[in-house]
Amino acid sequence: MFAERIARLTPSLVREILAVTQRPEVISFAGGLPADDALFRPDTALIQNLPDVWQYGQSEGEWRLRELVAARAAAIGLACRPEQVLILNGSQQGIDLVAKLMVEPGTPVLVEAPAYLAALQAFGLFGAEFLPFGVDPAAGPDWAAMGEATARARLSYLTPTFQNPSGYCYSAAERQRAAALLDASEGMVFEDDPYRDLAYDGAAPAPLVAGLSRARWVYQGSFSKTLAPGLRLGYLIAHPGLVVPLTRLKQAADLHSNRLSQHIVASVLESGTLDAHVASILPGYRARRDAMAASLVRHFGDRVRWSLPAGGLFFWVALPQGIDSMALMRAALAENVAVMPGEAFYPANAQQGGWLRLNFSHASEARIDAGLAQLAALVEQQLRQAA
Amino acid sequence: MFAERIARLTPSLVREILAVTQRPEVISFAGGLPADDALFRPDTALIQNLPDVWQYGQSEGEWRLRELVAARAAAIGLACRPEQVLILNGSQQGIDLVAKLMVEPGTPVLVEAPAYLAALQAFGLFGAEFLPFGVDPAAGPDWAAMGEATARARLSYLTPTFQNPSGYCYSAAERQRAAALLDASEGMVFEDDPYRDLAYDGAAPAPLVAGLSRARWVYQGSFSKTLAPGLRLGYLIAHPGLVVPLTRLKQAADLHSNRLSQHIVASVLESGTLDAHVASILPGYRARRDAMAASLVRHFGDRVRWSLPAGGLFFWVALPQGIDSMALMRAALAENVAVMPGEAFYPANAQQGGWLRLNFSHASEARIDAGLAQLAALVEQQLRQAA
Repeated sequence: MFAERIARLTPSLVREILAVTQRPEVISFAGGLPADDALFRPDTALIQNLPDVWQYGQSEGEWRLRELVAARAAAIGLACRPEQVLILNGSQQGIDLVAKLMVEPGTPVLVEAPAYLAALQAFGLFGAEFLPFGVDPAAGPDWAAMGEATARARLSYLTPTFQNPSGYCYSAAERQRAAALLDASEGMVFEDDPYRDLAYDGAAPAPLVAGLSRARWVYQGSFSKTLAPGLRLGYLIAHPGLVVPLTRLKQAADLHSNRLSQHIVASVLESGTLDAHVASILPGYRARRDAMAASLVRHFGDRVRWSLPAGGLFFWVALPQGIDSMALMRAALAENVAVMPGEAFYPANAQQGGWLRLNFSHASEARIDAGLAQLAALVEQQLRQAA
Repeated sequence: MFAERIARLTPSLVREILAVTQRPEVISFAGGLPADDALFRPDTALIQNLPDVWQYGQSEGEWRLRELVAARAAAIGLACRPEQVLILNGSQQGIDLVAKLMVEPGTPVLVEAPAYLAALQAFGLFGAEFLPFGVDPAAGPDWAAMGEATARARLSYLTPTFQNPSGYCYSAAERQRAAALLDASEGMVFEDDPYRDLAYDGAAPAPLVAGLSRARWVYQGSFSKTLAPGLRLGYLIAHPGLVVPLTRLKQAADLHSNRLSQHIVASVLESGTLDAHVASILPGYRARRDAMAASLVRHFGDRVRWSLPAGGLFFWVALPQGIDSMALMRAALAENVAVMPGEAFYPANAQQGGWLRLNFSHASEARIDAGLAQLAALVEQQLRQAA
């Protein structure tokens, strides 16, 4: 009685885990929430001096904000015109719009394995057939598999910068190599870049799509990680040939984005407050990352394998042989420690066990250490049981 | 290279007409914009005392707002629990979510003819096959056609209250009769109700879906017409069996709605300010409606046929035999008068010429009169040319 796609709208393990993390006694490594004290809270002056944002607005977004986003993109190496910018109700909406533009049942969609789970869900809803290629948190992309996948993909979804969940960041040379592969194929490229500004060890290379010479592309970013998720504001920048259909899809989806948030973000960009805010939160995030790294060493020793993420909000941890990450997740939850099993980040045709995603931005350093101590004890216990 | 649905994403006549209406010299009867002086502008105190709305929120919406919406629905005769309420990024998003839930290529979708054009576009994008039945602005629904259509429809989209564009409002008896037809069929019912509060001659009967005993349903409303479109806030209320898939679709579309706007609207509902604001704007809208009625009589006499709309923002005007509404629209635009030809409100399989939709909320009374004088002269001219 529903449309066929609803059969693909599977119950989300993630939703269930995240629901539990609302309880204050739970130490949560499960979500991807910014730290509460890192959220940007606009001051009174900013929201007092509102222009007239109350009437219907443009589907593309407010012109001033589009100009500011274009200037910011140029500064990281992606030259574009404001006309190519579309303001979104959060960057999740960009995934929905690109899915509508490109994906129908059977459409081959290249994804990294692992990949951002809400993108897998959205493309899967529209019937994508996933072409996954491995991205190792230390060694990077599996180039042979990527080459095979690009040859067949109609849409290639990539997160080259501090990927969620693996944390991997493609080097400039790797971006060029990937761009050459993508240029040689017929598909469209979709680069998702929400974590770029959360860089702890130096800036990331220019966006991958800036290196394309032939393929059509969409690039998107978010203000959820740098300012505040509650503003629900993101943007996409599109190859000129894609702006018109994406704008019409945006119009059909919700007419336009919230004008109050657009005004706040435009003001914050214009005044330089965004960069100042990011600079103010980076030391805290870097400290928590380093605290988690130290706690992982302290409690796990060489039991687990991971790489220090140079940006973003997550560690991607390989568990010892014989550990079932789903069983570990359930055992940890029973002790009020929430983790995200790696299974959630792989499409059904490339399932892999034995990984955990650990968020380091939400819990305090003391709770990070306590939670990892519990987790390590559970791993030891499972290993003993398996032996 | 795009998904097949993009071929159905036709260029919108409406967008082109509305673009022209931005020019200040144009007298616009074309859009559906609230009057600028009817927009609700939150006072400083309201946006100063913001709670902590900056973190990620719930996909379903803020609990306080869901409670307030449920209470408001109960007051108009639609008893429901807050758990059935889903907060939307404007009610256009409800159309997108229901389309995703129900519509795939070939899905039979019952619509009124005429019907809200952006709903036709959104359902059409997903491949709906429309089953239209006539709604006459004076005589109401064509019951025989509606009965045939309900028997086949998988989704029935209805706007029984001050419909856009016809202005028609189903009586309580007509709602019962329609509900009985819909209950006897297997389809889902979707009632779109954005204009209910703009009632000039007494309140509308309870929502149609409140009279259903068997069919599953979604009801939706909007704060764009009563408060401000720039807030981008609407809501849907769903049959309990539909809440879970709709929530998951909302999550895949944009995670959740803007929390700043949700706070503003919740405060406005809680304090009773919404009802006070609506009461304050109704006299002005009623005066413009009556001014347009007087000007229609003055300039057209019995050349055109229309009914006084008891609510909403539009007159639906039948042109004299032999007048081409598309040609009239173009001729009027050349003289800086914008109107919406009726063709935009019919699906392709039920096209009808000879109608205009005239918005009365945007132009001042003086400009309404001047614009209708020009339009009447153009009609006379076209009639002379045809003779």
